[in-house]
Amino acid sequence: MTGAAAMPAPQLTSLIRSALAEDLGRAGDITSNAVIPAGQTMHGVIRSRERGQLAGVEAAARAFTLMDESVEVAIAHPDGAAVEAGATVLSVSGPAHAILAAERVALNLLCHLSGIATATAALVEAVADYPARIACTRKTTPGLRALEKFAVRAGGGVNHRFGLDDAMLIKENHIAVAGGVTAALARARAAAGHLVKIETEVDSLDQLDEALAGRADAVLLDNMNPGDLAAAVARVDGRAVTEASGRVNRDTVAAVAASGVDIISVGALTHSAPILDLGLDTLPADE
Amino acid sequence: MTGAAAMPAPQLTSLIRSALAEDLGRAGDITSNAVIPAGQTMHGVIRSRERGQLAGVEAAARAFTLMDESVEVAIAHPDGAAVEAGATVLSVSGPAHAILAAERVALNLLCHLSGIATATAALVEAVADYPARIACTRKTTPGLRALEKFAVRAGGGVNHRFGLDDAMLIKENHIAVAGGVTAALARARAAAGHLVKIETEVDSLDQLDEALAGRADAVLLDNMNPGDLAAAVARVDGRAVTEASGRVNRDTVAAVAASGVDIISVGALTHSAPILDLGLDTLPADE
Amino acid sequence: MTGAAAMPAPQLTSLIRSALAEDLGRAGDITSNAVIPAGQTMHGVIRSRERGQLAGVEAAARAFTLMDESVEVAIAHPDGAAVEAGATVLSVSGPAHAILAAERVALNLLCHLSGIATATAALVEAVADYPARIACTRKTTPGLRALEKFAVRAGGGVNHRFGLDDAMLIKENHIAVAGGVTAALARARAAAGHLVKIETEVDSLDQLDEALAGRADAVLLDNMNPGDLAAAVARVDGRAVTEASGRVNRDTVAAVAASGVDIISVGALTHSAPILDLGLDTLPADE
Amino acid sequence: MTGAAAMPAPQLTSLIRSALAEDLGRAGDITSNAVIPAGQTMHGVIRSRERGQLAGVEAAARAFTLMDESVEVAIAHPDGAAVEAGATVLSVSGPAHAILAAERVALNLLCHLSGIATATAALVEAVADYPARIACTRKTTPGLRALEKFAVRAGGGVNHRFGLDDAMLIKENHIAVAGGVTAALARARAAAGHLVKIETEVDSLDQLDEALAGRADAVLLDNMNPGDLAAAVARVDGRAVTEASGRVNRDTVAAVAASGVDIISVGALTHSAPILDLGLDTLPADE
Amino acid sequence: MTGAAAMPAPQLTSLIRSALAEDLGRAGDITSNAVIPAGQTMHGVIRSRERGQLAGVEAAARAFTLMDESVEVAIAHPDGAAVEAGATVLSVSGPAHAILAAERVALNLLCHLSGIATATAALVEAVADYPARIACTRKTTPGLRALEKFAVRAGGGVNHRFGLDDAMLIKENHIAVAGGVTAALARARAAAGHLVKIETEVDSLDQLDEALAGRADAVLLDNMNPGDLAAAVARVDGRAVTEASGRVNRDTVAAVAASGVDIISVGALTHSAPILDLGLDTLPADE
Amino acid sequence: MTGAAAMPAPQLTSLIRSALAEDLGRAGDITSNAVIPAGQTMHGVIRSRERGQLAGVEAAARAFTLMDESVEVAIAHPDGAAVEAGATVLSVSGPAHAILAAERVALNLLCHLSGIATATAALVEAVADYPARIACTRKTTPGLRALEKFAVRAGGGVNHRFGLDDAMLIKENHIAVAGGVTAALARARAAAGHLVKIETEVDSLDQLDEALAGRADAVLLDNMNPGDLAAAVARVDGRAVTEASGRVNRDTVAAVAASGVDIISVGALTHSAPILDLGLDTLPADE
Repeated sequence: MTGAAAMPAPQLTSLIRSALAEDLGRAGDITSNAVIPAGQTMHGVIRSRERGQLAGVEAAARAFTLMDESVEVAIAHPDGAAVEAGATVLSVSGPAHAILAAERVALNLLCHLSGIATATAALVEAVADYPARIACTRKTTPGLRALEKFAVRAGGGVNHRFGLDDAMLIKENHIAVAGGVTAALARARAAAGHLVKIETEVDSLDQLDEALAGRADAVLLDNMNPGDLAAAVARVDGRAVTEASGRVNRDTVAAVAASGVDIISVGALTHSAPILDLGLDTLPADE
Repeated sequence: MTGAAAMPAPQLTSLIRSALAEDLGRAGDITSNAVIPAGQTMHGVIRSRERGQLAGVEAAARAFTLMDESVEVAIAHPDGAAVEAGATVLSVSGPAHAILAAERVALNLLCHLSGIATATAALVEAVADYPARIACTRKTTPGLRALEKFAVRAGGGVNHRFGLDDAMLIKENHIAVAGGVTAALARARAAAGHLVKIETEVDSLDQLDEALAGRADAVLLDNMNPGDLAAAVARVDGRAVTEASGRVNRDTVAAVAASGVDIISVGALTHSAPILDLGLDTLPADE
Repeated sequence: MTGAAAMPAPQLTSLIRSALAEDLGRAGDITSNAVIPAGQTMHGVIRSRERGQLAGVEAAARAFTLMDESVEVAIAHPDGAAVEAGATVLSVSGPAHAILAAERVALNLLCHLSGIATATAALVEAVADYPARIACTRKTTPGLRALEKFAVRAGGGVNHRFGLDDAMLIKENHIAVAGGVTAALARARAAAGHLVKIETEVDSLDQLDEALAGRADAVLLDNMNPGDLAAAVARVDGRAVTEASGRVNRDTVAAVAASGVDIISVGALTHSAPILDLGLDTLPADE
Repeated sequence: MTGAAAMPAPQLTSLIRSALAEDLGRAGDITSNAVIPAGQTMHGVIRSRERGQLAGVEAAARAFTLMDESVEVAIAHPDGAAVEAGATVLSVSGPAHAILAAERVALNLLCHLSGIATATAALVEAVADYPARIACTRKTTPGLRALEKFAVRAGGGVNHRFGLDDAMLIKENHIAVAGGVTAALARARAAAGHLVKIETEVDSLDQLDEALAGRADAVLLDNMNPGDLAAAVARVDGRAVTEASGRVNRDTVAAVAASGVDIISVGALTHSAPILDLGLDTLPADE
Repeated sequence: MTGAAAMPAPQLTSLIRSALAEDLGRAGDITSNAVIPAGQTMHGVIRSRERGQLAGVEAAARAFTLMDESVEVAIAHPDGAAVEAGATVLSVSGPAHAILAAERVALNLLCHLSGIATATAALVEAVADYPARIACTRKTTPGLRALEKFAVRAGGGVNHRFGLDDAMLIKENHIAVAGGVTAALARARAAAGHLVKIETEVDSLDQLDEALAGRADAVLLDNMNPGDLAAAVARVDGRAVTEASGRVNRDTVAAVAASGVDIISVGALTHSAPILDLGLDTLPADE
Repeated sequence: MTGAAAMPAPQLTSLIRSALAEDLGRAGDITSNAVIPAGQTMHGVIRSRERGQLAGVEAAARAFTLMDESVEVAIAHPDGAAVEAGATVLSVSGPAHAILAAERVALNLLCHLSGIATATAALVEAVADYPARIACTRKTTPGLRALEKFAVRAGGGVNHRFGLDDAMLIKENHIAVAGGVTAALARARAAAGHLVKIETEVDSLDQLDEALAGRADAVLLDNMNPGDLAAAVARVDGRAVTEASGRVNRDTVAAVAASGVDIISVGALTHSAPILDLGLDTLPADE
């Protein structure tokens, strides 16, 4: 995994603090406070219950240390690592109250993000014989976009737009209002800053020709079958980035990639990936 | 759906504002701003692409009106409704800039929460012949716990603890530290307020006897097979609420319910449910 | 004091930062900045001016260290300790600017919370011969609920609900709308999760019988005289927790407790307790 | 009450939203949601159970409307009004869920602030024959300073500093570090902006002479008996504002005022005033 | 002005609320509260004292209505309009307390942003004979980036990156670390999403050749004289966007533009533009 | 520079965190993350490109350490220091990713605040032969008032009001509504706390006489020529602070000061001062 997979640090602390507050509520961990003496320490390890690709390890570590800075965390497998079932991901030791209070938040982040990374890695592997890269979309969980897009990178994928403001994507309704691809592209080009790329959706070869004539940086080929995709790729002939989308899954992704498209974007990576199952095995401290 | 499914109103506005800010970034919807004239209005309908159970309809409506209070939303199927593929969920009309800017946030909430409601409804239906109720866990997405638990209720399920502070749940590690179920329960009982219930995990009939002797309000029977569950339920004989958990899914849930347990809790409802696919179909306004 | 009196850590930092900002305003401590050189250090001790029970010691300490992490604080008497007039509660040393800037916030928290703990301890002592426990209510100062309920525990009391969401309390108006205790309890029971307790107010033995028949976990006996309380306790006979409330004070609490109720809840603990008077005695550093 | 008693509007909304969130928690008012149908409306009146002076009426009204903007509130007695036991303060009508969910927050603010106003009014009345004005201090509840100082004005009192930054108050420790009143005043004067007043504590007539020579705007006469206060007032002879402080209460305040001081400041107004008892009497709507 | 100049709505409300709170402090507008009766209304007009280009009109209007929603504002000249000295920009009528309390915040925003728009318009006018567009940089005032970049658009300029995350800009230090333009560009290309543009700084024709060979989308020609700029533009020959920067001002900008560059970026637009002087002329209401 | 120039610490951390978040956006520094290896360290120095007076040095240092606490910063010239072109202000070493990510925020604060300090110092120097002090106004950048007023102090100036709440300033419209200076002053005096100063604007010697008779603490002589100012100062004869204002600049300030006024307030210090140009020169670490 390259440097591009670095965690978005500043927002992370704030997000984890909010997640801890959400779980602790007003009264905190009333079970542990009642049952476990205040000074008690403990050791624990987070292990993966299944094969997969990790994301959120650093976030999970931070959940423990933000709960109590005296908790010590050692990371065995970092973000982006592939693990087998049973592998230890990190170990944690310190005050039992803090570790147990942060456990659920740490795991909720780690399991969710690793689920995304694992789903991404499966698609990446499935298209390994083709030039296509696997990308996510803006179909993310509210509040978690930066982390979920990080998880896609940790799984070997690449990121599409982070929001409405960092690139232009002209969709069907824009085209309808503007009166065609040519007009929409012209308006977009006039308004765009010089570091803003413009992609436009096209649903026919005619629209594709307009997009190329209007110097679109990329074209979105939505819900086309592999044959149409291949024809579109041939027509583009390197003059724009080609992106395919539309209910792609592990069974169909190779056929899509075989069309020669540059990018295959898959909303399900972030909105429907099941978690990777990881758990905390705890041991009472021997001191 | 009873009154218990009411939306948690005050936090909702703040959460949706944050979600809009996350998508708009610093510069806002630069595509629509460039391509669509400022005064343009539009109509649109959100339709379900598949059969399912709705949650997040009110939240989606709020995303549009928080973006611009002049947007008008009409709800056709409310939270908790079952819909067929093609059904219209809500219609929206107003400034095109506002509707397009809020579209993704509205759909991200609605699709995610409806996915949870739909998964819940499937389990509820599968156990309809038994007294068991389907419950969620604390395995939720950070920041969305109240909404995801609402979605479970919208799907016909019930809620477990909302956090670490509203009930006591004594788990294996608490028992280990305390030196047994009896000791842990005694400590919990001494500290608990008179409106705090106490549940304890048990992994054997001996532990179950300790839990009943200690007047646990509920017992968590984790990862037991249906036979052991039935034996446990018989031993409890109504003296405590019985809860089964552990990788229950649509194929196995009826067998678990047949054991006679009161509650079946399923983490996957909130951490691994795929979305319900809904989309916004937009029309240019005829004015 | 047991583990149940632990401070609610994560929210505390945020609350104290806000309190410091409230006192510092835009320009900070303009008096000390003008009169005292920047490098000057000082020692100080917080002493109690009267006999009482402490709460907020850790919070006061945090006010100083959040102002400047180089301030050193040593706690002589922790939260929950009983102190005599003149007792040193904590000592503080470090930059004079930081200590003086945080002084008022530290004392405002400590005096207020210790006032609550002291008022609670007085009632707890007054009912020492009876099984009744002293509880607070939701009549707390906006923003300080978790801290004020902590102070009640530090004084030997127990906590009632922390909010509207962690237990059900059916009051007169709920009963009136539902058409009686029986109907209200039935609706509540149908909606409640399995870890949610239900308490209902009753104002007659008939309503009490309905509450017991409906398996209320607790009954609230509001504004009953000791004789009626005793009759109600006898009727309950252990089938529910009994709670008395209504303008109880130090003079009347023993008579209420003599009725045999389990819980006596007193709003005045959190809404009308006078402060415990503590002050900071400062000494210029000898270096 | 003059215009100076106006509510600090912008912060108020944010404070009330936080208070509502504190009470609603994650799941909201689970009792009312379960027991009362969603469409049910209700009427209610807030009445005072005892004689007193009101503050927080507008804040209480806002709690209801921030919970649900369809709630209608009519104020019968505004902030600053004196009321007899039984007087109606405001009436409220609208959705029962919203009114009941906001009730406790509305009353907690209203009772607390009216308690402060009532305590202030009692002291103001006690010194009616003298020129002295009754002032509060910075001994306020964290987070509520602006509201509590408003309540003092509503009770007929005046405000001291709002924080560390809006005036200079040289205290004993500043004097000790600076090497005397003269030196401390000189440093303060050199640093102060031209709209910043300077008050200095003095504990002897010699220090008083230094304060006057240094052109202090006001002198704080702390813990002096009435005879010493009168001597100090005579020595000042109008050259500075004179302020007395130190455990003044309703029994002693007239004697302090008889000394001729301009200001009598009383920390207990904000840190130890018991609430004014007000309650919501609710009626089911007849529609 | 095109649709691209739309205001970034959601963050704006929050920013203006903070600005009002900053000015109101804890006690609010104590002068107006004391001197002007609560019910008093007033009319006022904001006029420009000098010739310039407007930005922040909508923001100023919002300051008044966020202070009190009953204030009515009529905009005479919108964002992006050019005005002469004496022109009325907006008129405002409503409660005097609200208008006077919001006046300074409204003007601080309007004068600052109009200053930026005016400075931008001057440069845009100066290069009207050339294809070059005038762009801002990331040298903005902390907290105001989106508004300041809006002001640049209102003045006829275009926006560079909004932050570190929406495009790649390879600077000298990146090049040094990577071992040259070629290597840096290769790493950037490998990590960049397909909608992310890459610009690289070059300080020689050799580096420029590397940039073109590496298919940089844009090249930043920093601190070059017009002759070198023209040579660079010729070498690029349309294969990349050319951007000139480095202490450009109104006297030098035409010479820079004459070199044929596409973009001239000027940090001074946002970090050193003097305000456009506007003021509120108020009239007592005649009712 | 005296202690009065101390930085307003608590708000500073929050402001800088927001500024970093504003620049980092959702995805962080995508250029450095792509081009520079994660472990790479670097050294850098911030140097002034021109002669001036510093403010914001501590703030700039904090930007680096808040980005990553392992960054080490050494301050060579502190806030308030005068520097020549080429002077090193601070040096920084640590992870390259963190230093480059924080660079722009650190410089934006430092250059803006030093620009204000430098502009202030120029006016202070220009009136060195007179008693007048140079003051700022409330014409500050939204969100930065405390920092900008600090910068004025760092330049040798003094501060006027920090907001609407810390002193009373009666302006023309207050006078018009109240029916004259005498009436307005009387209302203000009646409402003002004993530590609140009152200044009133006067535009004639008659109004000045009213202001003096009403014991105004200060009088604002707005837009008077030096001759009228001198006459007003003579009439005041030490009975109030005299303040001149109205488009004062470096060329005219000495003439204003020669009138004998105590304070000359200049809005341009905070709203129109150009930055002081400082930059970060970076070196790859030799390790």
